[in-house]
Amino acid sequence: MTLASVILDGKVVDVQIERGIIIGVTPHNESPLADGDIDGRGLSVYPGLHNMHTHSPMVLFRGLGDDQPLDRWLNQYIWPAERELTDERVYEGSLQACREMASTGTTYFNDMYFRLPAMARAVEESGLRGRLGLNIFGDALELDESEVKRMLCSSTSRVSYSIAPHSVYTVSTEGLLRCARACREWGLPMHIHMSETEKEVTDCIAKYGCRPWELLERIGVLDMVGGTHIIAAHCLHLSPHEIDIIGSRGITCVHCPNSNLKLGSGYRFPLTELLSAGATVRLGTDGSASSNNLDMIEVMKVSALLQKGWRGDPTAAPASLMMTLATGGHTIAAGEAADLFLVDADSHSNLVYATHGESVQLTMVDGRVVWQR
Amino acid sequence: MTLASVILDGKVVDVQIERGIIIGVTPHNESPLADGDIDGRGLSVYPGLHNMHTHSPMVLFRGLGDDQPLDRWLNQYIWPAERELTDERVYEGSLQACREMASTGTTYFNDMYFRLPAMARAVEESGLRGRLGLNIFGDALELDESEVKRMLCSSTSRVSYSIAPHSVYTVSTEGLLRCARACREWGLPMHIHMSETEKEVTDCIAKYGCRPWELLERIGVLDMVGGTHIIAAHCLHLSPHEIDIIGSRGITCVHCPNSNLKLGSGYRFPLTELLSAGATVRLGTDGSASSNNLDMIEVMKVSALLQKGWRGDPTAAPASLMMTLATGGHTIAAGEAADLFLVDADSHSNLVYATHGESVQLTMVDGRVVWQR
Repeated sequence: MTLASVILDGKVVDVQIERGIIIGVTPHNESPLADGDIDGRGLSVYPGLHNMHTHSPMVLFRGLGDDQPLDRWLNQYIWPAERELTDERVYEGSLQACREMASTGTTYFNDMYFRLPAMARAVEESGLRGRLGLNIFGDALELDESEVKRMLCSSTSRVSYSIAPHSVYTVSTEGLLRCARACREWGLPMHIHMSETEKEVTDCIAKYGCRPWELLERIGVLDMVGGTHIIAAHCLHLSPHEIDIIGSRGITCVHCPNSNLKLGSGYRFPLTELLSAGATVRLGTDGSASSNNLDMIEVMKVSALLQKGWRGDPTAAPASLMMTLATGGHTIAAGEAADLFLVDADSHSNLVYATHGESVQLTMVDGRVVWQR
Repeated sequence: MTLASVILDGKVVDVQIERGIIIGVTPHNESPLADGDIDGRGLSVYPGLHNMHTHSPMVLFRGLGDDQPLDRWLNQYIWPAERELTDERVYEGSLQACREMASTGTTYFNDMYFRLPAMARAVEESGLRGRLGLNIFGDALELDESEVKRMLCSSTSRVSYSIAPHSVYTVSTEGLLRCARACREWGLPMHIHMSETEKEVTDCIAKYGCRPWELLERIGVLDMVGGTHIIAAHCLHLSPHEIDIIGSRGITCVHCPNSNLKLGSGYRFPLTELLSAGATVRLGTDGSASSNNLDMIEVMKVSALLQKGWRGDPTAAPASLMMTLATGGHTIAAGEAADLFLVDADSHSNLVYATHGESVQLTMVDGRVVWQR
């Protein structure tokens, strides 16, 4: 099929797609559309956005306990609500989240939650791609259960898995190592919250005598998993030594500015420093309980504004860099998966700074339209 | 006419409107709608948003020179573009801006630009309310021209005027005083950029031996105009003494977080401190050349996130306070003007944190629908 007459880098082109793959991008040809072709006249085409850190079922808790202190928010609102969840509710929440993501240009998301089979059902139904991280607390004993291993090793082309120890302050060192071993043995990435708050760092120093990334290095987690298989959300409070650890190993840090600001966790994400050190940086919304929506276009804007703001430098974090971070560097080109969206915004600047997710007109994953306004 | 079946503070109500004024708000009555009534079923009603600092024709320059250093942005992009403007282009830009504001829930805006008659024509046509500030540089000699006085004194119910000396670094003290005298004699407010950058403050100290607000006080501008008739955009870089000056006189400070961040001007807007001192605080987008859109819902979100973020306090700047700042404290109640909007967001939290301007379904000014999705 052909996605006809769309704007790409200022030119009007036709995008040829076969079996979920872009097989050609050619100057627009005025020949009549065939059955199944899409007329994208007037709209620009961009590679699909990747929401690299979220807890999608938490759309169910959107707005719950907003503007409350962090401990009251967790203890009185979020955790009691999570205790009431069932597979059916998690499925409903995931499906609602997938629809919101599809409608705002996201084609892939990297999640961390519970009840993964219910979530997987929603992802399959939505048409999106998702990597579902099994959230682990304590000693990670569930990884010894054979049905857990079976589930985590059952990836399809659209639903894959990761092991997601919650953090260094909620998982024991034994638990972290058990997660790391399972990642290596089962060929899965690790998804973890790291260096989100100043308190996490000072508590880690008090308990272990070192900072969180130094702990992961010391106990062997980083070597065991391999840096390029580690996706760490937040990474706000990093020492120069930790930036070296992250950068030299090519670890992925996911910046979630809306959540970090809203929870008062911090705002000086070391974007330039991490990139210079060799780290991979990506963007995420975090769950809708803390960021309140799943709009990656908004995340690009807030990320760019915040970098410019705290650095006092209007040239920091330009719109084109935000698109690279948000798409993982994918492009609209032959050989790429046909994961893309259409929007009336003819430049990275207009897309990032002037629009929102609601401006997206059509989203495609694997060559199939998963959402259309 | 009746705006029927809308959600207000969690209740389903009917809003009765006559001659542009809300005359009653009553529990929803299931009787059939009359001609001209509006069925707002399922939508929440909120008072219209006030964009208290913008340069509306600058939608024409949206995206121009984004991500460039400030001096290059002004000298190579914005100022050359402004020199090419005509009345017709200013009218077109204003009209486009008014439509964007109407479509995102804004019912009133406070502007600062040139070619005001062209702008006034656009405001009248759009149905919005606007206060148009005549932008003044240098010695303000144009205020001696009788046709300028005639224009500035020709307010209607929807289009009013102000005198808008650009700043203390682009207008002479004689010019500032000439503006102040005209404000007092003609009964007009003053609209000015103040304390936007650190450089503005250090330059003022170097030139005048005092900070910008101390200068306005010392030369008599504040006494002459009266604090409650002064609307100052930005107010980012304030000393405690300046906060006292602003607060004790009840001056209005307009926070424009998107513009301040994007231009790298600063991010620590002293919201709590200004409110405690007695100042009025309002919100604005600034022009679309620096903020890239005119979405006041986005401004509320970024304002709230930024306060929470730099203060490290998730309880700072709650959603309900943002609504008070963005609406000037207006409510949906008998006696208020029928300036309002409808949106699918049933709480301040959902409105501020989860939606954007594109979510607005209908906007009304003076009892007339000015925009409907």
